[in-house]
Amino acid sequence: MIPNENLKTYSLKEMEHYKIYGRTDETQDSLPLFFNGSGIEVNVTGSELWIDLEVDYDFHELWIWTALNDAFMSRQMLMPGTYSLCLFRNMSPDTVKNFKFFRELQAMSEDSLCHILIKGFRSDGEFLPVSDRHFKLEFIGDSITSGEGTYGALEDTDWLAMYMGSSRNYARMVSDALDAEYRLISQGGWGVLCGWDNDPRHNIPSRYEKICGLAEGEITEKLGAGKPYDFKSWIPNAIIVNLGTNDASAFDQPMWTDPVTGQTFQQRREADGTYNQEDLSRFKQAVTDFLIMIRRNNPDSHIVWTYGMLGYDLTFAITDAMNTYQKDTGDNNIAFLQLPNTTEETVGSHTHPGEKSHARAAKVLIEYLKTILES
Amino acid sequence: MIPNENLKTYSLKEMEHYKIYGRTDETQDSLPLFFNGSGIEVNVTGSELWIDLEVDYDFHELWIWTALNDAFMSRQMLMPGTYSLCLFRNMSPDTVKNFKFFRELQAMSEDSLCHILIKGFRSDGEFLPVSDRHFKLEFIGDSITSGEGTYGALEDTDWLAMYMGSSRNYARMVSDALDAEYRLISQGGWGVLCGWDNDPRHNIPSRYEKICGLAEGEITEKLGAGKPYDFKSWIPNAIIVNLGTNDASAFDQPMWTDPVTGQTFQQRREADGTYNQEDLSRFKQAVTDFLIMIRRNNPDSHIVWTYGMLGYDLTFAITDAMNTYQKDTGDNNIAFLQLPNTTEETVGSHTHPGEKSHARAAKVLIEYLKTILES
Amino acid sequence: MIPNENLKTYSLKEMEHYKIYGRTDETQDSLPLFFNGSGIEVNVTGSELWIDLEVDYDFHELWIWTALNDAFMSRQMLMPGTYSLCLFRNMSPDTVKNFKFFRELQAMSEDSLCHILIKGFRSDGEFLPVSDRHFKLEFIGDSITSGEGTYGALEDTDWLAMYMGSSRNYARMVSDALDAEYRLISQGGWGVLCGWDNDPRHNIPSRYEKICGLAEGEITEKLGAGKPYDFKSWIPNAIIVNLGTNDASAFDQPMWTDPVTGQTFQQRREADGTYNQEDLSRFKQAVTDFLIMIRRNNPDSHIVWTYGMLGYDLTFAITDAMNTYQKDTGDNNIAFLQLPNTTEETVGSHTHPGEKSHARAAKVLIEYLKTILES
Amino acid sequence: MIPNENLKTYSLKEMEHYKIYGRTDETQDSLPLFFNGSGIEVNVTGSELWIDLEVDYDFHELWIWTALNDAFMSRQMLMPGTYSLCLFRNMSPDTVKNFKFFRELQAMSEDSLCHILIKGFRSDGEFLPVSDRHFKLEFIGDSITSGEGTYGALEDTDWLAMYMGSSRNYARMVSDALDAEYRLISQGGWGVLCGWDNDPRHNIPSRYEKICGLAEGEITEKLGAGKPYDFKSWIPNAIIVNLGTNDASAFDQPMWTDPVTGQTFQQRREADGTYNQEDLSRFKQAVTDFLIMIRRNNPDSHIVWTYGMLGYDLTFAITDAMNTYQKDTGDNNIAFLQLPNTTEETVGSHTHPGEKSHARAAKVLIEYLKTILES
Repeated sequence: MIPNENLKTYSLKEMEHYKIYGRTDETQDSLPLFFNGSGIEVNVTGSELWIDLEVDYDFHELWIWTALNDAFMSRQMLMPGTYSLCLFRNMSPDTVKNFKFFRELQAMSEDSLCHILIKGFRSDGEFLPVSDRHFKLEFIGDSITSGEGTYGALEDTDWLAMYMGSSRNYARMVSDALDAEYRLISQGGWGVLCGWDNDPRHNIPSRYEKICGLAEGEITEKLGAGKPYDFKSWIPNAIIVNLGTNDASAFDQPMWTDPVTGQTFQQRREADGTYNQEDLSRFKQAVTDFLIMIRRNNPDSHIVWTYGMLGYDLTFAITDAMNTYQKDTGDNNIAFLQLPNTTEETVGSHTHPGEKSHARAAKVLIEYLKTILES
Repeated sequence: MIPNENLKTYSLKEMEHYKIYGRTDETQDSLPLFFNGSGIEVNVTGSELWIDLEVDYDFHELWIWTALNDAFMSRQMLMPGTYSLCLFRNMSPDTVKNFKFFRELQAMSEDSLCHILIKGFRSDGEFLPVSDRHFKLEFIGDSITSGEGTYGALEDTDWLAMYMGSSRNYARMVSDALDAEYRLISQGGWGVLCGWDNDPRHNIPSRYEKICGLAEGEITEKLGAGKPYDFKSWIPNAIIVNLGTNDASAFDQPMWTDPVTGQTFQQRREADGTYNQEDLSRFKQAVTDFLIMIRRNNPDSHIVWTYGMLGYDLTFAITDAMNTYQKDTGDNNIAFLQLPNTTEETVGSHTHPGEKSHARAAKVLIEYLKTILES
Repeated sequence: MIPNENLKTYSLKEMEHYKIYGRTDETQDSLPLFFNGSGIEVNVTGSELWIDLEVDYDFHELWIWTALNDAFMSRQMLMPGTYSLCLFRNMSPDTVKNFKFFRELQAMSEDSLCHILIKGFRSDGEFLPVSDRHFKLEFIGDSITSGEGTYGALEDTDWLAMYMGSSRNYARMVSDALDAEYRLISQGGWGVLCGWDNDPRHNIPSRYEKICGLAEGEITEKLGAGKPYDFKSWIPNAIIVNLGTNDASAFDQPMWTDPVTGQTFQQRREADGTYNQEDLSRFKQAVTDFLIMIRRNNPDSHIVWTYGMLGYDLTFAITDAMNTYQKDTGDNNIAFLQLPNTTEETVGSHTHPGEKSHARAAKVLIEYLKTILES
Repeated sequence: MIPNENLKTYSLKEMEHYKIYGRTDETQDSLPLFFNGSGIEVNVTGSELWIDLEVDYDFHELWIWTALNDAFMSRQMLMPGTYSLCLFRNMSPDTVKNFKFFRELQAMSEDSLCHILIKGFRSDGEFLPVSDRHFKLEFIGDSITSGEGTYGALEDTDWLAMYMGSSRNYARMVSDALDAEYRLISQGGWGVLCGWDNDPRHNIPSRYEKICGLAEGEITEKLGAGKPYDFKSWIPNAIIVNLGTNDASAFDQPMWTDPVTGQTFQQRREADGTYNQEDLSRFKQAVTDFLIMIRRNNPDSHIVWTYGMLGYDLTFAITDAMNTYQKDTGDNNIAFLQLPNTTEETVGSHTHPGEKSHARAAKVLIEYLKTILES
């Protein structure tokens, strides 16, 4: 390959025109992408575009995907290191190309090395303003919202980075259909009250008010993940919660024991198979409390709690908690919406919703949000 | 036409082999079809089949549809009178033909002349046993369950018999997919507490315990419509309630006044657009009471309350009432299931769900019921 | 039923406003519907509409279908006799209703009693002008174009009127999509050279130049079926030929013997399974000759020969004949278009293309005709 | 990233178990992937897999895609150099993983640097035998078969490597559906007689009998591209030709002039827009000659000439040539099959067939080949 000698290096700090996707710490020199669906969008002329990255991880390698003029172009595993990745070459120099670069992998609470920084770009063109989208949407969820199962074969059952994604995710489909920017906060296996395995630390609300409470370790700490999130900096039109699936699983799992303190936790069923009412109550309390927290931070956003892509078990518990919240607060700007359950036809890898299930859920959600946002 | 001289007339009373669809009074000499989806199924050899009918009506003419070997064959308006209708001719005489004849039009609470009786058949073949289906399903609803809007053009807005049907109805789709017999109890414009226009007499629960509490007048009274329904005679595996849509409309309609007594009724909204809590409470009470009534009559049937094909407005009210019912009774054999809302793409005539909307709702319900019935 | 006393009877002869579908003899007092897809369209106000019919047949009973405001409303077998059939009742009297009434059954060459006449209408409204459609299309074919298999169950194998239709036919789908009027000339089992059973009388070209050369017997003769068709009276933008399928079958059938004259006919295969070249040649000649005949009568119409819905066997023979015709005449206003073959998923009754196969073929044909008609 | 110290390096030469896709020179030390769809398949245990590559190019950068257990996993641009690319990490070590690695970019006749070599693998597992597929298919074509337009946005009109592919190509879809191995020989802009711009050197037949006659330059020459292809080494059940689209374009383009010799070439239209008969004849001759060449090299393969994904213009010319070939040779093991034209709904980038158009064409071809291969 004969190198293009007209490439000019742009550090992100010097650049005026780009749009950031996903919660991040904008005071950093480089742009950390903390969540799946975190990324950057540019409009650029010129024939060639490269992106300057710093990448590292331990167990969970980083995957990214790109879109050129809103069409999916690539999806790949990134090698660790500090390097430049070519995004396109030899295009007609005068036209404006819209390019988006997204993280596929969710924030990894279990890989303290795992991070990706965008340091800048190289191009022989010029960067131009990026237009705003019509709406802003925040999605809060678990493995479903992390897109787990949207890649991989039906028989693949490992819990691996490469099966996760934002590219075939209902959150992306909804956002594209509504011309919305989106931010994702999700973690596979986590719930409102506890994780799928009864681990009470694995609840999303405890991390919601930080920039990226899900990332752990010194590196991400330095990148600002642990700072309080400034909710006023990006006000979503709607917040879509998709939690409860792992809280339902917990009722069928053995007791969790803290390996350090010996503390235990378990959501129990009665002998007749029904939920233990006391345990169900603390789940409901967690739902109510989370609604209070979301509303406190987002006074004007519509909040819709979605549920059902992996079973409808906690429908009554969630709606009971939402009714309680509504009666207590008089907050009418909330809704409950079931999404179609995943079936044999629509399942993906690791018995998670496949792309078809995401597409079906997205359709229901798009239709719903249109009635709310466009009215 | 040269008449077939080998036809033999069979009065229904003499016949051994047939299957009745829909609630009816089997002590009658002839078989009254009270509801949409009410009908008869036969297995018959021979080349030709006719059905002997008695039909009359005033405003709402009767429509029927037929299926030969489970394939849709005809849909037509019936003229009033007592006559014989040809169902097929010139088929290979030796094969067994499965034939189904169904009423399209809902039970008509506003047409006291309206009735259809099956008196018997004419055939040159022999009637053979009709096999049982795997499941029994009862559907309780309003115009959606009456199939209103499944026929007719988008711009058709008259409230007419010909736009209603059981042939393109989600209830039929669900039943066919699950190999289930079904019974429908539905009435356009009615609700759990009151009708779309605040008429408090137009609530389904008040008619649920009669054979066909929706039919009115001397003729249907003689045909047994007003007799208590024997719930033990046909025990459904699942009962699908699809009510609440008209109760939601009532909140946006003017006060109803009884033309005779002057009594009034209205479900009110507050100045800020929210539901009046007192009125909402009596709606919830009606839901809870209806669940109690259904359960009393159907101790073992799964009850799923479906909602959403024309908007999700009362989701919280319905689930709150269901939670109350569940806490009071400990009844865990109930569920709440949202069905996808009708969109511009899926709407039919009279701004009601079209065939595509029914198909989409049916898919979600089929998938749900499979997890319940086949587990 | 309380009769509507405001109905006024209109004889067709007196009526000014209506549109006829299908070739017919307009000099008759009543309107004979000779072909499937033959029918009448009216625009009418008023609350109620009836149609006055004369119907008779022997083996092949007549089926019809109707559309109100372009939405399918009914499909039914007609009883023989002279009578009035109600088309709608109780509609809002002031709106203009568009109503179409179509014959489902193909012209029946084997039932000399078979006929249907439209004598007039009854209505309490007024008949208004019917607007023209954008295009005119003529379809020439066999059982596929007669819609055989579009009704009936997969296992139904009788050759019966009720399985045929124009309502689920690719010709109707194409015409609706292109806003076209259409005329059908088709007969199940017939070919370009001979019928599926080698009967050389069963070729469409021999009947093409009469109004309805397919109907036989004294009755249809009196109705004008045997008169020469006036090709100038209705000039199609495109003529879609869909023939060759039965000519292909003939190669696999035993010799045909004329029951009267003892004359025989057979399209033969060689010992190695290939077509006998001499027999193939006379098939090709028939194709060429038919193109000449069609062009002579339709100097400016685009002619597209479609093929493949029941196998591609004679593709080379048809294209060879078309190439010969084109070289001989310099006629470039012709095309050959394969339609997707029928599969297990798309087959209907009697191993004929089902509605799904018609829909798929229609899509290809619609797309093709758009490039021709709209350019 | 902590390197996996258990990785063992396997040079391809030492490996026993793998399957090669695409024509190549197996005598080379490394495996050159000459065509789009060329690639390698392995079955491997272990937790991690890397592939050792040598890559270079000038204008047309190399893109590849991978599939894990037959599910699409990645698509990316390769940087030039000799390096190792990680294919997966951290999988359950004991299960057998099926991995496929494919070139997306067509053989590039205009980039003499362009090449990719597979030198071997690195893994901590063991390589196991790869099972044979049921059929072998060879696809011969132009930009359609090079998958041009299957990536990229509708408005993208550059002629670039990244818009081409084998991953969303009808050839792949057909092969997957029929459980077939496939080999592609295709070049964008080329025809049977000449290229889209009348360049007579750009005809596929002139390159068909070499391993990869499309690659040019010293590098690929050394890699064996110019060697005669051993047709006996891999006998396809069917050969799918998809050529003629660029030959049709040539009739609308200006005369081509050889920049060196001054020689000219042009397919002309007459003043009335029809094809010049002499020029059409040499196109037909090219079709006939190519059929003779294909048959000489593949005595027993079914040959189907497909056509239509970008217009049906040369249907008569192609079928005339095929009829001539068939009459001359008596070869009945050939067929002509139209594939549905690309529409506004199904078009991709650069006004080429998009993924939906490929899917629709694939469906018709799959159905056709089933009737041939499975009979």
